[in-house]
Amino acid sequence: MAKHDLGLSLIFHALADPTRRLILARLAEAPAPISELARPTGLQLPTVMRHLSVLEEAGLITSSKDGRIRTCAIKPEALTPVQSWLDEQRAAWEARLDRLDAFVMQKMKEGGE
Amino acid sequence: MAKHDLGLSLIFHALADPTRRLILARLAEAPAPISELARPTGLQLPTVMRHLSVLEEAGLITSSKDGRIRTCAIKPEALTPVQSWLDEQRAAWEARLDRLDAFVMQKMKEGGE
Repeated sequence: MAKHDLGLSLIFHALADPTRRLILARLAEAPAPISELARPTGLQLPTVMRHLSVLEEAGLITSSKDGRIRTCAIKPEALTPVQSWLDEQRAAWEARLDRLDAFVMQKMKEGGE
Repeated sequence: MAKHDLGLSLIFHALADPTRRLILARLAEAPAPISELARPTGLQLPTVMRHLSVLEEAGLITSSKDGRIRTCAIKPEALTPVQSWLDEQRAAWEARLDRLDAFVMQKMKEGGE
């Protein structure tokens, strides 16, 4: 499996959980300490920390420790491979529509001869 | 969990596997029977069928049976929620940058007074 593919799999896996998407949405507003991220999810701290570690492994967030407080922040550029993958899919689909168009035009031309 | 959220989780889960992304990329080119989808993956038919069922549950593909041959096709509009989610993330991030800009401008103005 290509390195790019593995990264994309980790990102999609990280995004497949609604709590992790909630955490990302919260971090898009501003960096936050772990305790503050736990509050709106209603989850225990160890559960939230497991989610954060999945997000960090996928490269979607970073965290830094100041004394006893660990603060998380998103890495917005980390979603670029997802956008690229979507763009590739769209391009393949549009190329297919163009081929279908060309085929129909050719058939119409042949029919008109 | 909102219905929208569940759908998005299923889609991201489906996209988290490189074989399933390979199948989608192949189907973006043209619909294909299951046997043809199995060939480039090098996987056994039952494994491919399990992947197809995950893609179908996420609403990313459809399949139809003609005699003994089941043909799969992508539903390109099914990726719209992913694009919307990415756009929401980007909007939240840009709003944050705008707030930071406004804050810096205000501080500079105060400093200049």
